[in-house]
Parts: sequence; C-alpha cells; structure tokens
Amino acid sequence: MDIFEKLFAPAEFARRVADTKASMRKAGFDLIVCQDPANMCWLTGFDGWSFYVPQCVLVHIDEETPIWFGRAQDAKSARITTDLPDQNIVPFSEPLVQHPVNHPYDELAQLIRERGWGKAHIGVEMDAHYYTARCHQHLTKGLPEATFANNADLVNWARLIKSPAEVRLMRDAGRICTHAMNRAIEVMKPGMPQQNVIAAIYEAQTIGVPGAGGDYAAICPLMPVGEGTSTPHLTWTDKPLPDDVLTMIEIAGARRRYHAPLTRTIYLGKPPQQMLDVAKVVVEGVDAGLATAKPGNTAEQVEAAWQAVLRRNGLRKDSRVGYSIGLSYPPDWGERTVSLRPGDTTELQEGMCFHIQSGLWLADFGVAISESFVVGKGGGERLCDVARELIVIE
Amino acid sequence: MDIFEKLFAPAEFARRVADTKASMRKAGFDLIVCQDPANMCWLTGFDGWSFYVPQCVLVHIDEETPIWFGRAQDAKSARITTDLPDQNIVPFSEPLVQHPVNHPYDELAQLIRERGWGKAHIGVEMDAHYYTARCHQHLTKGLPEATFANNADLVNWARLIKSPAEVRLMRDAGRICTHAMNRAIEVMKPGMPQQNVIAAIYEAQTIGVPGAGGDYAAICPLMPVGEGTSTPHLTWTDKPLPDDVLTMIEIAGARRRYHAPLTRTIYLGKPPQQMLDVAKVVVEGVDAGLATAKPGNTAEQVEAAWQAVLRRNGLRKDSRVGYSIGLSYPPDWGERTVSLRPGDTTELQEGMCFHIQSGLWLADFGVAISESFVVGKGGGERLCDVARELIVIE
Repeated sequence: MDIFEKLFAPAEFARRVADTKASMRKAGFDLIVCQDPANMCWLTGFDGWSFYVPQCVLVHIDEETPIWFGRAQDAKSARITTDLPDQNIVPFSEPLVQHPVNHPYDELAQLIRERGWGKAHIGVEMDAHYYTARCHQHLTKGLPEATFANNADLVNWARLIKSPAEVRLMRDAGRICTHAMNRAIEVMKPGMPQQNVIAAIYEAQTIGVPGAGGDYAAICPLMPVGEGTSTPHLTWTDKPLPDDVLTMIEIAGARRRYHAPLTRTIYLGKPPQQMLDVAKVVVEGVDAGLATAKPGNTAEQVEAAWQAVLRRNGLRKDSRVGYSIGLSYPPDWGERTVSLRPGDTTELQEGMCFHIQSGLWLADFGVAISESFVVGKGGGERLCDVARELIVIE
Repeated sequence: MDIFEKLFAPAEFARRVADTKASMRKAGFDLIVCQDPANMCWLTGFDGWSFYVPQCVLVHIDEETPIWFGRAQDAKSARITTDLPDQNIVPFSEPLVQHPVNHPYDELAQLIRERGWGKAHIGVEMDAHYYTARCHQHLTKGLPEATFANNADLVNWARLIKSPAEVRLMRDAGRICTHAMNRAIEVMKPGMPQQNVIAAIYEAQTIGVPGAGGDYAAICPLMPVGEGTSTPHLTWTDKPLPDDVLTMIEIAGARRRYHAPLTRTIYLGKPPQQMLDVAKVVVEGVDAGLATAKPGNTAEQVEAAWQAVLRRNGLRKDSRVGYSIGLSYPPDWGERTVSLRPGDTTELQEGMCFHIQSGLWLADFGVAISESFVVGKGGGERLCDVARELIVIE
C-alpha cells in the first residue's frame, strides 16, 4: 500500500541539493548539518513529528544525496517519506535518547568520521530552534580535527524563492486559511466559550478545502481578547467571549507543511470610532506594502511604504512588519531569513512569499489586518481572501 | 476585565521557587537561566506562544522572585499571566529578533551584569529545545567573568512530583483525552478521509469536557496507517482510510498546559489473529507496569515488569517504555527527566505522573495501547478511560 504521496519530483530535490551545494562552495563549507525540520524536509522530503529528539540531514559537497540521521524508530519514516538510498538513512542507538551523559550527536560525530569527513569545515545552524547548546557541544567534541562555523541559515536562504510546485501549495494554504478564518468569524459571538471558536478553527484548518486537506500549523490559533489584544501571543481560555470587546485572530492555513498566515481583528458590539480609524490606516498601509512588493524593490522599501502611511496618520510600529514564509514546523511559521524592516536590503524576486504582519499593538489595544502574499510581476499577490476591515459582529 | 484566570496560589509559586533554590544550592549555582517554556510557566505562570524567540526566566539564589526576560511585545503577556513585579519583567530590543550579528542574549548578559551577577556560577539548560548553540555562545561571550555549567534540567526534576492542584489538572487532561480518543473511534471508518478523523480529534481536544476546556497539545494528533504503524511519528495525509487496515492514534488531552497522552490501535476490518494476540500481551504488560508503579519502587522496575510479560510471550521492545509527563509545550509532552527503562533508578513517589508508552513497533506493523497514570499508594492510577484492547471497527 502506498501510504504517502510524494509531492515533488526527484529533479526538484536534486535542484535543491545543487543550489545548497553552490551556497556551501561560496561559503567554503565541505559539510553542513541541518537540524531545522523545514530544512530537513526541503532537502529530502522527510516529514514526521520526530524533531523533539536530535536529528538532522547532512549535505556533503562530494556526496550526491543527503544523509538522514535520527532515532532508530524514525528511520522507517525516512524510508517512507524520502527517496534516500538505504545507506544514507542512519539511525542512532535508542539508549542515547535523553541520556544525561551520552548524546545522539556522539554517534553523529562517529558517522562523520567514518565517512572520512573528520577534518571537514562544517557549517552548523547555530540558531535553529532544535540545535541545542548540547548538540553543538557533543558534535564539536566528537570531531576535534574538524572546524566549525555558523552556516548562517544557508538552507533557509536557499528556500527563499519558491518553485512553481511550491507556489501551488502556498496558494492551497491560502485557501485553507481563508476557509478557517471565515469559519471563525461565523461562529464568534458574545457569550461563546473561547475554546469553541478555536475548535471551529482547528476543524476548518484540518479538513481544508476541496482538493487540499489541511496540515497542522506551526503555531496554534491565537485569539487574544480585550486587553490581551495589546500583546500578540496569548492563547485562549475557557471564558466566554464578552460583549462589547475587541478580539484578534492569528492563524495559518497549512498544506503539506506550507503555510499562509493571516490576522484579522474583530469587534463584538459597536466599535469605538478610534478602532475603525486605526483599522482603515492598517489596510491602507498593507496596500502600500503590497504595491511596493515588486521584483527589484527591497524588503526595507516594503516596510518604508507601510510606515509612510502610518506616519501620515500619526501612528508608528516599532517591530518588523513582516517576514518570509513557506515550509515550516513548530514553533514558528517564519523562515528566519528576510524581515520587512529597515536595514534589510534583500531584493525581492518573483516566487518569494511573505507575511506582512501589519499588527499595531498600542498601549491598551491592538489592531492587525495582515496578508500573506507571493511576489508577482506587479507586486504582492494575496494568498488569502478575507474581508479587509475591522470585522464587526453585533 | 480579568482576561486570564490564574490557576495556582502565590504560595504554590513561592514553594516552587524555594524548591528550585534548594536544588541550586545543592548543585552550587548562584543563578540559573531557564528557557524551557514549561520551566518558565512552572516558575512564574508565564504562558503564551512566544517561545520561538529567545526568552527565559532567571532564578537567582538571593532574589526573592524570578525575572522574566523576553521580547518587548511579549512583556505584556508576562504582566497578564504572572504576578511578577514590574522591575522583574525585562524586555529586549526588537531589532535583535533574528538579527544576523547581534542576539537577544547580548542584552540578557547585560541584564545579568547590571544586577551585579557578572561573576556568578550560572546553570543553563544545555539541552532544552530552544536553548540554541547561539543562545549559549552570546550569553557566555557577554559574561566573561561568569562560570557556566549544565544545570542538568534541575527545574524539570523539581517538577517531577505534582501538587494536588496539578494532579487535578492532570485528571482533567485525562478526561479530555478520553473524550477525544472516543470521538476519533466514533468517526473512523473505511473510506473516511484521514483529515476528517484528525479534525474530529482537534475539535474534541479543544472543546474539552464539562468544567474543563481543552488547551493545545504539545504534539499534533498522530495517526499512522498500515505500514506507517511500524514507525511512531508520521502525520496524516488526505488519503481515505482503507478497508482492512491497521491504524494507530496517539494524542494527548491538555488542560492549561498539563498533558495526559494516550495511544490506541484500531483495526478497520477483521484483524489477523497475530495482532489480537500482540494487543493482549501489550495490555497485560501495561497492567504489570501499573501494578509495579508503587511508591518506593523504581522506574526501571516498572519497565522490567512490562518486559517480563513480553519476554514470556516471545516479544521484546528496545526503546524506553515510558517517561514522566506534566506541564509541557511543543515539541514534546515528556518532561525530559525520568524514563521507564533499564538503569533509571529514580524512586517513584505519590504524585509523579508517567506515560507508559507500550508501543511495539515491529518490522511490518505496530501495536500500542498506552496509559497515562499518576502514582498512587497502590500503584499507577490511570488518567484516561478508553477501551483497553485492539479496537475493531468493521
């Protein structure tokens, strides 16, 4: 029985590995260790919720295909989800899981030595979420003749421009997100327990839309209420939604690990004029950003276009206004590469995808009406299609 | 408006901090840096999905209350979810988020120096999921006069015995898990798209049960199908459930971040006798483990009791048979302390909680019928209540 549908042709993986090796050559690395689950998946197709133990994909400049290294019980997942040859799927010994003295990366170091790469110049992902201080300590200790440097997320950077097959998944993710957000708006009303709204979101995110089932999102649904809207990452409680209150929903649609996030701000009752005014400015700012997101313009120019609209209306936002999106795993749906903020001079190209997170978190309340978009010839093309205004439920 | 319900009395937090300081004294630490989100929450109550950026709680031996350090926009979450005094909520500068050169922990080092702790002996969580190699690099570089050591998860260890208030939440989590698993069994049938089953699980997990709304679980619902049951961490696809197939569901109920996980194995159709036989052995093995999980016995004795039943029936399991559970955040619902495996001589005490993950992943299929339990006077008390057999849906 074929239990898994592979999404990309072998040629696409070959191109990704070739692109990665080109970056490695430029940076002078013989070998890179990729622990970011999104990098592991992008390079090989490997997928599964096993990233809570140390695991990685190795790319060596002279080795045709990458090597998967992980827990023995997950090696079968690598066999099912990737086309890697058997000798490039290497399990570590089970007793190393959460062992106080030994560590799976002792065996990773051994593998690297056995392949004859003990003196390599090795690039590691110093700030990938799961590449812990202890992973680094055991790996460097086990390879005393190798040299190490931060590979500066070179695989994340290689992921920046999406292939046509990836853009299709991003558009599917956008459709799923639209469905889930509209479903939330449909069920929200004063008195509704918060978890019932979240349950409706999860259901819609997971079932997805015709032709595109949903995947788990890298961040749980966020729905701050009232004063909570002045901070972005609070999760729901059991309390019923009050009457006459501002709420915010930030969710993503996910399609086979590709994410399209979206934020909407909702008022239950009759909103104060100030909030309606701020919402209008936010949408206008996003439109200015989308219009500026053309090939050849830079990331910081998109931010400047947004900021100009805010300034004209007596507002400002200090945090970055957006970030690159695509393939991702918990805990974040950003790619940790381009930020839409001053100083980021990355030149936009067709096929890059961003979340313009237009959230304004003021002292007592916040308004966010964001968009996920793909860079097209004429500017940012929105991936979702949900009402662009302060949504009012009376 | 009171948007957040605090679950524990200030005295419980004071006791937790006191226990932590006692462990610190024993280990010789002046200061510990806790980045594990579960440790941050356990020490202060802090809750929110902000763990994708560097953040932590500091405990200094001479400072009455912990210090929260995190992103500026999340400081408000700390004000809402904790009772920390304002001067102990310290935000870092926004431009440090995902900055290629500078890092939030440059400012953490500065904070530690400013408090006069620049020469402290500092314990860090070397293997906590989000304490990256780069976090450690910037922190140690910024504190050249301090000494550093792995604190060996001393806060995780302090969390091992649950208070009565925590056990109540664990029992709530068990009820939520029971509800969600039964709901999955109810909707599973041949031809049903896999994501529809997962959607029903998410809905039940989130709505929860009367008196206890659900929280997001630290791991998404896992439902390997067919050959996929021979590896534990595959996630669902769009394909319909086939006829005459083995599937497995592993989920947790979560109540305000406390988790009760459970696995059940389901056969759609008429199961081969071999699977029914293996399932019977697995349940018998779990019962032997539960009976052994009495105060005074050790973690490895629980495993030995389970393994004896398997051996008697010509089976064996190489991976650990369980682990400590409680408060947790993605990517794992284990506490990373006690493992039910040979060599773990931790003495069980009332109020400890475990997931006895009795999964057998054989060459071509797997069977897992697990239980979450709290150690009571007479042995392990199950937190969930779902049929304990190979579940057959014809």
